[in-house]
Amino acid sequence: MVIVMKRGATEEEITRVARFVEEHGARAHISRGEVQTIIGVIGYRHSVQQEHLRALSGVEDVFRISKPYKLVSREFKRDDTVIPLNGVQIGGGAPVIIAGPCSVESEQQILETARLVKEQGAHLLRGGAYKPRTSPYSFQGLREEGLKLLRKAREETGLYIVTEVLEAMHVPLVAEYADVLQIGARNMQNYELLKAVGRVNKPVLLKRGMSARLSEFLMSAEYIMSEGNDQVILCERGIRTFVEYTRNTLDLNVVPTIKRISHLPILVDPSHGTGRRELIEPMSLGALAVGADGLMIEVHPRPEQAWSDAEQSLNPEEFRRLMQRIRHFIQCQRQEQPVFQEAALHEPT
Amino acid sequence: MVIVMKRGATEEEITRVARFVEEHGARAHISRGEVQTIIGVIGYRHSVQQEHLRALSGVEDVFRISKPYKLVSREFKRDDTVIPLNGVQIGGGAPVIIAGPCSVESEQQILETARLVKEQGAHLLRGGAYKPRTSPYSFQGLREEGLKLLRKAREETGLYIVTEVLEAMHVPLVAEYADVLQIGARNMQNYELLKAVGRVNKPVLLKRGMSARLSEFLMSAEYIMSEGNDQVILCERGIRTFVEYTRNTLDLNVVPTIKRISHLPILVDPSHGTGRRELIEPMSLGALAVGADGLMIEVHPRPEQAWSDAEQSLNPEEFRRLMQRIRHFIQCQRQEQPVFQEAALHEPT
Amino acid sequence: MVIVMKRGATEEEITRVARFVEEHGARAHISRGEVQTIIGVIGYRHSVQQEHLRALSGVEDVFRISKPYKLVSREFKRDDTVIPLNGVQIGGGAPVIIAGPCSVESEQQILETARLVKEQGAHLLRGGAYKPRTSPYSFQGLREEGLKLLRKAREETGLYIVTEVLEAMHVPLVAEYADVLQIGARNMQNYELLKAVGRVNKPVLLKRGMSARLSEFLMSAEYIMSEGNDQVILCERGIRTFVEYTRNTLDLNVVPTIKRISHLPILVDPSHGTGRRELIEPMSLGALAVGADGLMIEVHPRPEQAWSDAEQSLNPEEFRRLMQRIRHFIQCQRQEQPVFQEAALHEPT
Amino acid sequence: MVIVMKRGATEEEITRVARFVEEHGARAHISRGEVQTIIGVIGYRHSVQQEHLRALSGVEDVFRISKPYKLVSREFKRDDTVIPLNGVQIGGGAPVIIAGPCSVESEQQILETARLVKEQGAHLLRGGAYKPRTSPYSFQGLREEGLKLLRKAREETGLYIVTEVLEAMHVPLVAEYADVLQIGARNMQNYELLKAVGRVNKPVLLKRGMSARLSEFLMSAEYIMSEGNDQVILCERGIRTFVEYTRNTLDLNVVPTIKRISHLPILVDPSHGTGRRELIEPMSLGALAVGADGLMIEVHPRPEQAWSDAEQSLNPEEFRRLMQRIRHFIQCQRQEQPVFQEAALHEPT
Repeated sequence: MVIVMKRGATEEEITRVARFVEEHGARAHISRGEVQTIIGVIGYRHSVQQEHLRALSGVEDVFRISKPYKLVSREFKRDDTVIPLNGVQIGGGAPVIIAGPCSVESEQQILETARLVKEQGAHLLRGGAYKPRTSPYSFQGLREEGLKLLRKAREETGLYIVTEVLEAMHVPLVAEYADVLQIGARNMQNYELLKAVGRVNKPVLLKRGMSARLSEFLMSAEYIMSEGNDQVILCERGIRTFVEYTRNTLDLNVVPTIKRISHLPILVDPSHGTGRRELIEPMSLGALAVGADGLMIEVHPRPEQAWSDAEQSLNPEEFRRLMQRIRHFIQCQRQEQPVFQEAALHEPT
Repeated sequence: MVIVMKRGATEEEITRVARFVEEHGARAHISRGEVQTIIGVIGYRHSVQQEHLRALSGVEDVFRISKPYKLVSREFKRDDTVIPLNGVQIGGGAPVIIAGPCSVESEQQILETARLVKEQGAHLLRGGAYKPRTSPYSFQGLREEGLKLLRKAREETGLYIVTEVLEAMHVPLVAEYADVLQIGARNMQNYELLKAVGRVNKPVLLKRGMSARLSEFLMSAEYIMSEGNDQVILCERGIRTFVEYTRNTLDLNVVPTIKRISHLPILVDPSHGTGRRELIEPMSLGALAVGADGLMIEVHPRPEQAWSDAEQSLNPEEFRRLMQRIRHFIQCQRQEQPVFQEAALHEPT
Repeated sequence: MVIVMKRGATEEEITRVARFVEEHGARAHISRGEVQTIIGVIGYRHSVQQEHLRALSGVEDVFRISKPYKLVSREFKRDDTVIPLNGVQIGGGAPVIIAGPCSVESEQQILETARLVKEQGAHLLRGGAYKPRTSPYSFQGLREEGLKLLRKAREETGLYIVTEVLEAMHVPLVAEYADVLQIGARNMQNYELLKAVGRVNKPVLLKRGMSARLSEFLMSAEYIMSEGNDQVILCERGIRTFVEYTRNTLDLNVVPTIKRISHLPILVDPSHGTGRRELIEPMSLGALAVGADGLMIEVHPRPEQAWSDAEQSLNPEEFRRLMQRIRHFIQCQRQEQPVFQEAALHEPT
Repeated sequence: MVIVMKRGATEEEITRVARFVEEHGARAHISRGEVQTIIGVIGYRHSVQQEHLRALSGVEDVFRISKPYKLVSREFKRDDTVIPLNGVQIGGGAPVIIAGPCSVESEQQILETARLVKEQGAHLLRGGAYKPRTSPYSFQGLREEGLKLLRKAREETGLYIVTEVLEAMHVPLVAEYADVLQIGARNMQNYELLKAVGRVNKPVLLKRGMSARLSEFLMSAEYIMSEGNDQVILCERGIRTFVEYTRNTLDLNVVPTIKRISHLPILVDPSHGTGRRELIEPMSLGALAVGADGLMIEVHPRPEQAWSDAEQSLNPEEFRRLMQRIRHFIQCQRQEQPVFQEAALHEPT
């Protein structure tokens, strides 16, 4: 159930409504928009009657949300969620570029990569310290040592850090070093982990599981938000299909679909999504054209020597060209009459 | 096996090589490029020795093609295939727009649609006269009557006609009316039909089957080309996956992949590919951004009254806006340094 | 709409009801069971009112069928369809075994195979004369010559023949030689072909398409039945999924599902379904255990020399062992209290 | 690399070989069969030379394993792994039946269910205390309270307990109560959790992920075994495909495939695998026919009142009938000449 407060409802009115909800055995989730405040009622019992809520002072409307997700839905929050981070904004504006190697391998490698992606205009640095690998015999990441090297790269370049956390127990440690906590595709339904990052005050980048339906993807975001963390960034990274020419099937359809039903920003990772270096450039442009809020790109100073994901990492020259094309794309997009983009995103279903 | 002739090889040399191939029990398929001629050897026996061919006058190189497809591959023909049609070119240039209703329903409906898509800048008119329907009790198309109405629309507007053919037996009749023969997704592996359209001197638009791997898609094009018809246009229209929010999963990854391994033009059909009207605009722009040679769009004067595919047809206003965005896209693309696009398409795998 | 006639309704009453239906612009499809007659109303207009039908003499009940398929559904015909063929019955009894090579290759090969599968107890001989091959350069079958060789094998062994037909135009010729016409997976939605075999008075074995949903599979059977041919045999042969250890994913779940909603017999083809010789035996037993009405097995005297599907053909010794295990299975099944099997198949959903 | 010791190799010889391996920077994993001992070399460096190993006393053969999985493979251990548990054996013999409710709901519910499944012949009791639910607002399980109720049911009925663990941190607590630790499908690639249960001395039941390829499934088992826990039980529970008539597509093909390449026992869960109560009985029999080592079945005293998975739980009467059919199946299987089953499982690929 969602309670829409009147424009200009006072703090006191808001508090009173929230208290009423909680006295009836449900939880109130308050979301303050620029003009209006909305209160989500979570776990409501039948004892919280819509008509009683409507009678409270300051309440404009009360309605049920039929979909299983509440906090992530546009019904609950009309405006795009915008996450400000170190001078850039994720969501609702120009695309954000996250770039870096699959794994942190050494001080030299991560510093070299950080410098080069920064130089080309990337906004955040990615790099795996804890690596989820199919084989127990593969390189599992430098772990805490990797986190320290990422911090060094952050200190030198000023780039904020996106890095994966694999385990609820590791969350406090990883959160000390990371600016954005990444949940990998294999952990999209590791609910204990989702709850753990939901209790942290840092943005979470949630990757779509390999065989996740839309509602499952959004429900996993709902897990994070229901613990109190509103800063969720979704990320499409390819689904598993019968197709054999890409490692995964990057599903760009999910981008405009999510834009209609959720207010959360959504990025695209064409590196994992295709698994093939030569497809990263065209699919990056495609992702921006369908409305993605940004890209996550694997870059390595010498891909042929990378310890993991060699076949899907751009080399410095390829990344430079990609960034040039992205800049051209953004420039073109700005010239377009903004009415089209507005309409494209917000027209009723 | 593929024989590359020297630049400036004479007609006589070409003929002699072809004759040599055929005397050894294989077929020679001659493809004249602007600078070089290439001869494909089809069904070669071991008796045609590479070293004998190399020894012939005018021959520059001879090599085996390891992939199962020959005529459709870029190894066989380096330059993009360009199909000129009524003043536009399919492949290798600006995107071509094919628009029209799912089914031809009446004279008024098809003429009205033809006028409106022409007015907005579409290059060809689509419309189904023979309809492959899941149920035997659904509308099966106006059949020959529908073809006659398409001709009327062609006479009035000058738009060339793309229409589906369902059966080898129908090919001569449909070819009388159609400018481009369409093979639907369900018939992608109806080999008798592929052979039949391979013997016609009209372009064939081949839609990808719902669960077609890349090699199967290209081998179906190879069936058409191996019968002598070089004018094949590929079309991605969505694959079948576990995903539930789109009717099919439009797979844009296939576009840049095909561009690398085949010289054939490839279009995208976001109407069938997504099955959802509100996704057609973003996915159309995405398709162009990844390098598609054009789009196939369902348009109906009054979608809510359409006899088929109502939920995926644009209304006139939506189509107008889509065309406006496409024009903006094309304009931007032209401003980009052409070196990038060249490189994106032709760099070695 | 389905009209259930009273037990003991007279011929005259039945005729009168059918005539009434047709006078109102619909078609009547009469299905005479042992105790009751059911009349299917196809393409009914709103003018055929349920209450008018109920008022006619001999009518017990009238109800609408909500599913898209009518003639194939158990609502329309309660009893299992049983197709008698050369002394065996397909459906409703002991499993039928169809065996033989992928392709007819030579007189010696087909005669040798026919003798050996007959000796081991197979009931019908399969063998492809017209072969749908992914590549235009692969062996396309001996075509009419192959049909003649199949006839020879039939004359010598008495085994009836199952062979594929690829094209509506070929139906009359193939029907001259074949006892059962096979529609391959790639043609499951070749509606012109389905209609053509629907007009022939021979059983049709319809293979499930690689990505066919249940309703699509049944609707393709409906196409055949709606043309007047009631002798349809369904066949599961594997679907396309992400799984890589089998060529296709044999979906045994479809067997008990179909048994509940359709009266048609359903076979399983573990040779194409798995594409791996060593899985044929266990999956054959699994198919019978879930309730399949029979099996279709590829057997070749010398699989390593087969012109197609070598990796999924049993050799004579493997086939002998499979038949021995099948006989044991059937014997066990007979010992089971029949009440269980009855209940398993016919209990209400 | 795998070292096969001679029959009758002494303890001293075995120890010397293991020490040699470890001195060269690799780990030795000793597996003592009844007649032969095999030593797996994990993480071997190039410094461990095959020829040096072959020269050691007691060594019969040394070979490399090309597949990514080692400890789980039949190349490494020929004989079926058999896990003895409370008087039954999982693997290598008669099928084991695990039954019980989806979730532990109350003392009365779990005791009632435990009694009834015991009475019908089930060997272990399943029941979820920690529930991974798609929605954060769904019932998440009684957690520790649920574990205590399971212990009560164990005390009363003597049935051993199978229950899921969601998080590495929870492993010690759950292992106190459970006899078999279950890893759910969503956690199949939660590697931290796999490592945690790999360090416990209790059998682990590992469910296949919804989109897991064969090698991924086996590699997850390898994670557990590489930590020292050899008691891994695999479980097929349905994969995600385009198919819509079952909640998941139960993939029986995986059973005989795994039997060939791994020595680990594999069970089938037709309740989650199909998600439809009426398919559980036929698919259970199919699972046993293809060679599954047992079944995992959801049973609830009153499915219509279950807090989760109501639509896929058998009621007591349905479970009684299923067990009767299973007993008949096992009896038949015993009558079959054992040579066939032997051959079916162990013949070379």
